[in-house]
Amino acid sequence: MENMSAEGKLKELGLVLPPAPPPGGVYRPIVITGNLLFLSGHGPVLEDGSLIKGKVGIDLDKDQGKAAARQVGLTMLSTLQSQLGSLNKIKRVIKVLGMVNCGLDFEEHPYVINGCSELFGEIWGKENGIGSRSAVGFGSLPGNISVEIEATFEINQ
Amino acid sequence: MENMSAEGKLKELGLVLPPAPPPGGVYRPIVITGNLLFLSGHGPVLEDGSLIKGKVGIDLDKDQGKAAARQVGLTMLSTLQSQLGSLNKIKRVIKVLGMVNCGLDFEEHPYVINGCSELFGEIWGKENGIGSRSAVGFGSLPGNISVEIEATFEINQ
Amino acid sequence: MENMSAEGKLKELGLVLPPAPPPGGVYRPIVITGNLLFLSGHGPVLEDGSLIKGKVGIDLDKDQGKAAARQVGLTMLSTLQSQLGSLNKIKRVIKVLGMVNCGLDFEEHPYVINGCSELFGEIWGKENGIGSRSAVGFGSLPGNISVEIEATFEINQ
Repeated sequence: MENMSAEGKLKELGLVLPPAPPPGGVYRPIVITGNLLFLSGHGPVLEDGSLIKGKVGIDLDKDQGKAAARQVGLTMLSTLQSQLGSLNKIKRVIKVLGMVNCGLDFEEHPYVINGCSELFGEIWGKENGIGSRSAVGFGSLPGNISVEIEATFEINQ
Repeated sequence: MENMSAEGKLKELGLVLPPAPPPGGVYRPIVITGNLLFLSGHGPVLEDGSLIKGKVGIDLDKDQGKAAARQVGLTMLSTLQSQLGSLNKIKRVIKVLGMVNCGLDFEEHPYVINGCSELFGEIWGKENGIGSRSAVGFGSLPGNISVEIEATFEINQ
Repeated sequence: MENMSAEGKLKELGLVLPPAPPPGGVYRPIVITGNLLFLSGHGPVLEDGSLIKGKVGIDLDKDQGKAAARQVGLTMLSTLQSQLGSLNKIKRVIKVLGMVNCGLDFEEHPYVINGCSELFGEIWGKENGIGSRSAVGFGSLPGNISVEIEATFEINQ
């Protein structure tokens, strides 16, 4: 029961979650239907509530981009924890769409989005934390954030 | 039963739907599996069948972009109505992907896509009409349309 | 029972599938939940394992782009066959997201992605092989591949 210890993993790793961001538009942070949870696109919120901004490959290098994707993952965890009460309610990751704000010649989107995927693997384990994925390049993102990620999860019922 | 009055809301608001567009490629306008309805990406079709074109932040300002997103929403309603017979068959909005055709420095995608989300809130009410969402910037869209939106809905069974 | 002959169709058409690509990052090729199968974003893998690269409308014309999308479709079939044992386990196509790596003024994304959709129609038949779809333009894709496609399928149970 790997996923039973998601909250324990969070503590063990000493991870500090940023504040769960209020929606930046007319939408809900999460919607649950059946055993599927749809999580809205999230940006890289820091502990003080500010955002990591700039284009990867131009303003940020690929390692800074990967760190931004990990911060997006922490922000997603914060929303899940605040909406569900506990990360243990997530059974597994179904699907991740990793959106990188980058130059038109950038090629290392998977490397960048691994920052989030590796975090999810640490929290829910490789079996449940790693889902299907696309990691691709967008011309622009809201507020010029460096990475945005949306995801679908299966929840325990 | 907020959503029971979707057709009533449409009339009350005096909204005129554009013609439901035939697919512009090899795909179906909607697919239903279980209680989920997947709606293909739609563009901003006007009453005469023409499309709103141009990049937001370059050819259109952000308010014109928001109006285009509302027109996409009306076009989505037209497809739903023609495919299902009635908008009342929609229980609620699950997920929206708002795709803005915009310049590489555009930052207000959520503001633009609110044009569709606010319309859905008017038609199905805030509880059922507002779902999860990502609103992001694309380098280009088919036929240079200004906004394209795809969505997933839950249907009444 | 159109879809029962997917493997037969593959042989009849004399199609040769490229090798199923190992994930290029921290993700799974497919995830199944209930009767839904989520297939990760795939690129155009050739029989020798190399990839079709370059931007459609700049490095490739639209017909070369369409051929690249068909090759993505063959690559998706290869993953499905290797993961499921047989393409006959797919009941139908639910949703396709066609991502074209193209110039900022490109307008014919649906034409390009038809290369994949027509293939799916040949394999599973028009009734089951054609699903909902969005076909849109991305500023950049991993490794500068010309087309990436992700999809959701319904499986036989």
